[in-house]
Amino acid sequence: MSDEKKIPYKIYLDESEMPTQWYNVRADMKKKPEPLLNPGTGKPCTAEELSHVFCDELVAQELNETDPYIDIPQEIQDFYKMFRPSPLIRAYYLEKKLGTPAKIYYKFEGNNTSGSHKLNSAIAQAYYAKKQGLKGVTTETGAGQWGTALSMACSYFDLDCKVYMVKCSYEQKPFRREVIRTYGGQITPSPSNTTEVGRKILAEFPDSTGSLGCAISEAVEDATTHEGYRYVLGSVLSQVLLHQSVIGLETKAALDKYGIKPDMIIGCAGGGSNLGGLISPFMGEKLRGEADYQIIAVEPASCPSFTRGKYAYDFCDTGKVCPLQKMYTLGSGFIPSANHAGGLRYHGMSAVLSELYDQGLMEARSVEQTAVFEAAQEFARVEGILPAPESSHAIRVAIDEALKCKETGEEKTIVFGLTGTGYFDMYAYAAYNDGTMKDYIPTDEEIAASLAKLPQVNG
Amino acid sequence: MSDEKKIPYKIYLDESEMPTQWYNVRADMKKKPEPLLNPGTGKPCTAEELSHVFCDELVAQELNETDPYIDIPQEIQDFYKMFRPSPLIRAYYLEKKLGTPAKIYYKFEGNNTSGSHKLNSAIAQAYYAKKQGLKGVTTETGAGQWGTALSMACSYFDLDCKVYMVKCSYEQKPFRREVIRTYGGQITPSPSNTTEVGRKILAEFPDSTGSLGCAISEAVEDATTHEGYRYVLGSVLSQVLLHQSVIGLETKAALDKYGIKPDMIIGCAGGGSNLGGLISPFMGEKLRGEADYQIIAVEPASCPSFTRGKYAYDFCDTGKVCPLQKMYTLGSGFIPSANHAGGLRYHGMSAVLSELYDQGLMEARSVEQTAVFEAAQEFARVEGILPAPESSHAIRVAIDEALKCKETGEEKTIVFGLTGTGYFDMYAYAAYNDGTMKDYIPTDEEIAASLAKLPQVNG
Repeated sequence: MSDEKKIPYKIYLDESEMPTQWYNVRADMKKKPEPLLNPGTGKPCTAEELSHVFCDELVAQELNETDPYIDIPQEIQDFYKMFRPSPLIRAYYLEKKLGTPAKIYYKFEGNNTSGSHKLNSAIAQAYYAKKQGLKGVTTETGAGQWGTALSMACSYFDLDCKVYMVKCSYEQKPFRREVIRTYGGQITPSPSNTTEVGRKILAEFPDSTGSLGCAISEAVEDATTHEGYRYVLGSVLSQVLLHQSVIGLETKAALDKYGIKPDMIIGCAGGGSNLGGLISPFMGEKLRGEADYQIIAVEPASCPSFTRGKYAYDFCDTGKVCPLQKMYTLGSGFIPSANHAGGLRYHGMSAVLSELYDQGLMEARSVEQTAVFEAAQEFARVEGILPAPESSHAIRVAIDEALKCKETGEEKTIVFGLTGTGYFDMYAYAAYNDGTMKDYIPTDEEIAASLAKLPQVNG
Repeated sequence: MSDEKKIPYKIYLDESEMPTQWYNVRADMKKKPEPLLNPGTGKPCTAEELSHVFCDELVAQELNETDPYIDIPQEIQDFYKMFRPSPLIRAYYLEKKLGTPAKIYYKFEGNNTSGSHKLNSAIAQAYYAKKQGLKGVTTETGAGQWGTALSMACSYFDLDCKVYMVKCSYEQKPFRREVIRTYGGQITPSPSNTTEVGRKILAEFPDSTGSLGCAISEAVEDATTHEGYRYVLGSVLSQVLLHQSVIGLETKAALDKYGIKPDMIIGCAGGGSNLGGLISPFMGEKLRGEADYQIIAVEPASCPSFTRGKYAYDFCDTGKVCPLQKMYTLGSGFIPSANHAGGLRYHGMSAVLSELYDQGLMEARSVEQTAVFEAAQEFARVEGILPAPESSHAIRVAIDEALKCKETGEEKTIVFGLTGTGYFDMYAYAAYNDGTMKDYIPTDEEIAASLAKLPQVNG
């Protein structure tokens, strides 16, 4: 480590070095993502249509494909200081354990009570809701991280917060519920009997353990049928990737400060919020032809939207109440097995990332959960951070790549996103510790059957 | 906040500014704590006697009352960089919410997987055990924080780790068990049938929910009856306060960097490890007549060793297998009600803090748990960190003092120790959220009955 002394274990930016603008990667894309479509008309959604579901300012951000930088309001910058800048950590201990010549860095977003990066967008969305004079917001949550983050943000701005939580996560994570309640949020397991769409899903699948797509439908229905409420979403949407660009901007600033140029950037991908945020400024350089990076999205083998899905228009939710989005999808009716990475169980993928992937600007890999927890445990034991199951997908591939370097002798610089901590995922760790964890991979037939139900759209 | 702009929300020292030596406050005490006594002979314990229970180097530290500074071995400094320096946070949001002219800072020790400051001493103790060529260590844990910290440290040094966990915490905190298992630790609820002392306690009190004193007895018995094992303790002992001085040293360095002089330093006190560590360099200045600070220990009303105990020689454990220590104590047979701050349920108190308290160099207050959780929730909502129940005792008094400043208009600078996060304490928060939390204060008769059984020693 002697030649590396000048690079600390943890690089913290000063507060004065924190980003004051978000970066909108779409502005640098020559071919933009396809527009959201109104499922009724088949035409691109207008701002007016979207404003029934989303806050006005967030609709403007969603549709903004031209401005590369958007100012972060001062109130949000102030709130960010509560838990940002997050550290960029040099994984000296992991490198040593692996005996790799690779240099591994990770951007750790878990040092806040929501336990993940989700707070970056939650506070932005709550801010715009408050500014619009709303009473409250509704949302869905999978692993519970987004719900926690939103309840924290709403508590800060004194907004109502109604959370529909995917039932299997609700049951696996009772403590998440209490954190959300401590911040004053209301929480309902989904599918529920409180919405029309929930009742419909329960009638068809009474034993459903839920899915993000289904919880989204319920939250949207709740928002659009109550005066003064709007729906907010923790991933997938382009506005969320915009807010999450703060991860990548800080990462890049920290690397630049020490003159480090990564070869490879790795992130887990559920709906794409973390990965999209982490890679955005690097992808910007790539799009502008200023630099090249290998970028890898990692998804669970049980919900492989990038690696086995189709790039097509699809519903964002099971209940088909949301706009259609062109994205890599397994079909909005796809319900993945009850794996332990609730945050990566979404049937589709961010439109921005889908388009970048389709253009060959990034790769994707899928990994099985036992291998993921093996990496999680190895990482926890040497780096001292117990990672979230979601984040551990990125760890798995980072370790695999570092081990390849060990074989080839290449001194690659690997950066990965450590999106959160696993403190509320101990049932998953228990299953791993007990040796009872199972891997489940959907068959080609299952995926084909789900994709056969994609809506017919001239996209 | 305009005049405060130069003080960031979070002060992080550079790694190069981290302490390289621990500070031993006993060196600056004119009247030292009374020595540990051998219960058999009534004479001060010799290093040889103690070495049957503790690692050799730790015995030397325990008995060292003269050296003010002790070098932190490089391996421990390296490990510290995994989770240190910890931030000193200006509670701008809490101040604003309270509308107080007081300036509030807190040293946050919860940003690591053990969730508390305990890792500071765990890694030191594991290091010395490894250096001595031991196979492993045994210990007790109350809230589970120390057990988690020790399992992390032992995993790092490849040592066996056997943890006796106070039964009520074991049951309240199933996820703690899994974290400990993830790090390879073995865990047994105490009192257990695996030790003689455990069987004896169970015979007398079959429904016992355990106590730290009882878990200590079991762990000591286990260590002293197995070759190649020693017992390690997460609090109370002077060696632990020595290791924890890193908290206070960093706090002082951060304050000095910005020219801030605190008026008041507040910490929760169970066995005294956090408080003793936080205050040590400040107390050193006080002892040397260089500065004055108001120092406040906060304990639960259900286990009030400082405020209602007696300064006397007592056993450190229920099973009476440990040396006698002169300390503020409620009697080694005192079993506090099953409150939600498992880390503050010890019947006694650090000998160093007891002596400082007896000399009038610090104050103590006791607070009831409902009021503590009220403060915890208020803090969580504005500062974004969900605090541990233990830490929230300090928050309660910090808020009380800040509100006093609001009345008097005094612009006091308050520093408190935020020892950890409450992510594994959600049953406690659930009880608070549900309104079912109870306060329990022992009667004078109960305390007198327990103190009547103190050992007879010419101390």
